[in-house]
Amino acid sequence: MFGKINEEIIKKLIVIAGENNVLTCQEEVCGYAYDEYVSQLPGCFPEVVVRPGSTEEVSAILKLASENRVAVTPRGGGTGLAGGCVPVHGGIVLSMQRMNRFLELDRKNQLAVVEAGLTLGEFIHSVEKEGFYFPPHPGDEGAMFGGMIATNAGGSRAVKYGVIRNYIRGLEVVLVDGQVIHPGGKLIKNSTGYNLLNLFIGSEGTLGIITKAIVQVMSRPTFLRTMVIPLNSIEQAIDNVPLIFEKGIVPMAVEFVGLDVITLTEHHLNLSWPTHQGEVHLMIIVDSPSEDDLSRMTDQIADVVLENGAIDVFVADTPTKQDEVLKIRSNIYEAIKKETVDILDICVPRSEIPGHVRKIQEVARKYGLWLPAFGHAGDGNIHTHLMKAKYENSQLVPVNLEEIKDKLEAAREELIRDAASRGGVISGEHGVGLYKKKYLPLSVEATQIELMKKIKQSFDPLGILNPGKIFD
Amino acid sequence: MFGKINEEIIKKLIVIAGENNVLTCQEEVCGYAYDEYVSQLPGCFPEVVVRPGSTEEVSAILKLASENRVAVTPRGGGTGLAGGCVPVHGGIVLSMQRMNRFLELDRKNQLAVVEAGLTLGEFIHSVEKEGFYFPPHPGDEGAMFGGMIATNAGGSRAVKYGVIRNYIRGLEVVLVDGQVIHPGGKLIKNSTGYNLLNLFIGSEGTLGIITKAIVQVMSRPTFLRTMVIPLNSIEQAIDNVPLIFEKGIVPMAVEFVGLDVITLTEHHLNLSWPTHQGEVHLMIIVDSPSEDDLSRMTDQIADVVLENGAIDVFVADTPTKQDEVLKIRSNIYEAIKKETVDILDICVPRSEIPGHVRKIQEVARKYGLWLPAFGHAGDGNIHTHLMKAKYENSQLVPVNLEEIKDKLEAAREELIRDAASRGGVISGEHGVGLYKKKYLPLSVEATQIELMKKIKQSFDPLGILNPGKIFD
Repeated sequence: MFGKINEEIIKKLIVIAGENNVLTCQEEVCGYAYDEYVSQLPGCFPEVVVRPGSTEEVSAILKLASENRVAVTPRGGGTGLAGGCVPVHGGIVLSMQRMNRFLELDRKNQLAVVEAGLTLGEFIHSVEKEGFYFPPHPGDEGAMFGGMIATNAGGSRAVKYGVIRNYIRGLEVVLVDGQVIHPGGKLIKNSTGYNLLNLFIGSEGTLGIITKAIVQVMSRPTFLRTMVIPLNSIEQAIDNVPLIFEKGIVPMAVEFVGLDVITLTEHHLNLSWPTHQGEVHLMIIVDSPSEDDLSRMTDQIADVVLENGAIDVFVADTPTKQDEVLKIRSNIYEAIKKETVDILDICVPRSEIPGHVRKIQEVARKYGLWLPAFGHAGDGNIHTHLMKAKYENSQLVPVNLEEIKDKLEAAREELIRDAASRGGVISGEHGVGLYKKKYLPLSVEATQIELMKKIKQSFDPLGILNPGKIFD
Repeated sequence: MFGKINEEIIKKLIVIAGENNVLTCQEEVCGYAYDEYVSQLPGCFPEVVVRPGSTEEVSAILKLASENRVAVTPRGGGTGLAGGCVPVHGGIVLSMQRMNRFLELDRKNQLAVVEAGLTLGEFIHSVEKEGFYFPPHPGDEGAMFGGMIATNAGGSRAVKYGVIRNYIRGLEVVLVDGQVIHPGGKLIKNSTGYNLLNLFIGSEGTLGIITKAIVQVMSRPTFLRTMVIPLNSIEQAIDNVPLIFEKGIVPMAVEFVGLDVITLTEHHLNLSWPTHQGEVHLMIIVDSPSEDDLSRMTDQIADVVLENGAIDVFVADTPTKQDEVLKIRSNIYEAIKKETVDILDICVPRSEIPGHVRKIQEVARKYGLWLPAFGHAGDGNIHTHLMKAKYENSQLVPVNLEEIKDKLEAAREELIRDAASRGGVISGEHGVGLYKKKYLPLSVEATQIELMKKIKQSFDPLGILNPGKIFD
């Protein structure tokens, strides 16, 4: 079905992108066969990796690929967790790493224009230096804009600030035939025709290659405060969340996390979390340009939670205390990664978190697994970790994967079905990619999948753009 | 090309929706041939108006229409300004007026579930009664949810709170073949397949009929304050806007308005605006759950604008003063409507407002027209009014339309071309509908329009859903 890469194609790619940017030897291309999916199941190796330096080069590469019906798998920072950038039909891996320029900071419109290969870390550095702020923070700062847009990445601040989708005002996209389009613009409002901008966002590189983006930035909020609130149960924790919103407070982040993974991460980092009381902790971050306003918010939140089951309230009000708490929270994944088989990314309605977490506990008991789950209580996005380890005496105790493989598989499917029964979906922020596509029909109606396939067929009739992903 | 309505179809429609809800006599159907477009150019009369009472009825009607290749034009509140609900090929007008139920207020998730025929006014009433708040306010409270979603309506609060798109979490949509789908859900994050939800939003009824929506609501902000700031020029006014944002303040609304239309509206309502100084006034609304925070914001805004050309600053801090200002601002359109030929809805990058407004003034001088322009300084959305009147001695003086018709037409096109040259589009919030479609190629690349047509072809192969709109 797909054309193979031959000498002639390689020669043409070298003419387009330069010899240094066309990689074919196995040692070089093998690094482009994986993403951050913990179990590192490769699709297959790319036949060739091309690193274009400009939109024109991307366009020429896609024309060539179309002429030869060669698969093209776009790749950003490779920080994805669903195999979205993993090639499954050989062909070309199109690495955007050289298109990493910060093109413009438009102060008057509070917009930045970037190339798709710019990393989140470099972007944050550049805008903060200029006194601006980029609210979404989808975890790994090695992520590149193209990939964050292609997966509609989220992160813990979505509850107040929304996901990547809410910050992308315009795109430059190269279509499969090499044509370049510019949906959206430096615009806050746009009701001029179908919203192609939002269709490309979250389409995981299957409809076109994103080469540039117009990104909204904000003025920096001056003050932050982080609260840690121990409670006896996940229900109690989650039941507090709407009560906080009802006070007119929208925290920047509302996370829930179990004491088990907190303890492991404390050991891992040799840092200490403010409290070991209770079973489940809420970590709430509030932000405001006014310190008075922050105090008002933390006081109101404390009143609410103490009336509703909180054992205590800890406020990290100095930058040092705050950094410690945030460092522990953001390193949980690192602390348990070695024994993690898969990270689920289920999103359910916020009110369904307690029910879904109970199901996680039930499934863990049923199969004798340790399934730590933590995540975004404000937005319903729960990261259940399928572990090849147990948690015993405050320690991680490895388990032989072969012995529990089938159980993990069964647990995963039960949790995905449970989420669906609660109106949830398989992916809140990582995308479907390669590893979740078999579960897509559990989250999305068959008729919707048919419409998606029709859109794909319209945009990419040969099916060469990131083949084997989402529903393909 | 389209099938005609015949006796047999009428009989079947009556079986589906009931005799009272199938209107065929001219006196009844003629009211369904227009929207609020001021010049009331009809497309044509519908052959039949059907008022379904349920999703099942909508589904049955679309199946019948598909079988007979009959045009179906969906209609909400009829408050549109672009002819989006005006039939141009006869057939069926599908009025959603009976599907007006508020189905659910989900307090824990801060979501409402509504039918497409619920009006904005009824919705606001229902949620406010329960202590919630719906931030977007696209003007006319007779607008229905289906129409607001189909046009991605905006309003003056978009600068802080975003447009309708940002509040729609899920939809129920009936496809042209009668199948019912449910893109999105009670979800804050979703990266599970192509985002059909956002594709339906803003597609003006051409891809499917929206029957239900899941709508985000918020806790009510407790306090509001409105500022009126006179300045000597539009440049000075607009140049202040980014300076305010840079202080970390995001006002709920930042409007600019000329003294001419303010004066007319004062006369019209017999109310008085706080000041008649200067040429252009900024009207800024800030909101916060804290009164201290409000004072901080208004003080900071006053400091900024007084350093940058403001003649004075008026703060309406009592509900009465506030209501007067807001009443005048929201009645400008009413005050000049009788002599208005068209309201443009151009959206440009915020920083391009002064340049575009200068162009409006230049075009007005060139053709001897009065073209009052006011709108959303925070989001670049400018409502230039094409008038069949002059403004003389604080009065509206009518002009014979026939004498200036060609000039108005030329002015419109010059302004649309000017917006395009500044990265702007023809519609920020009203949609393209019928009356703006000839200008679509001035705002959107031909290749994008081709993609839109392919999507349309995939979703509606017979082309019977709201034919003659956007690009058709």
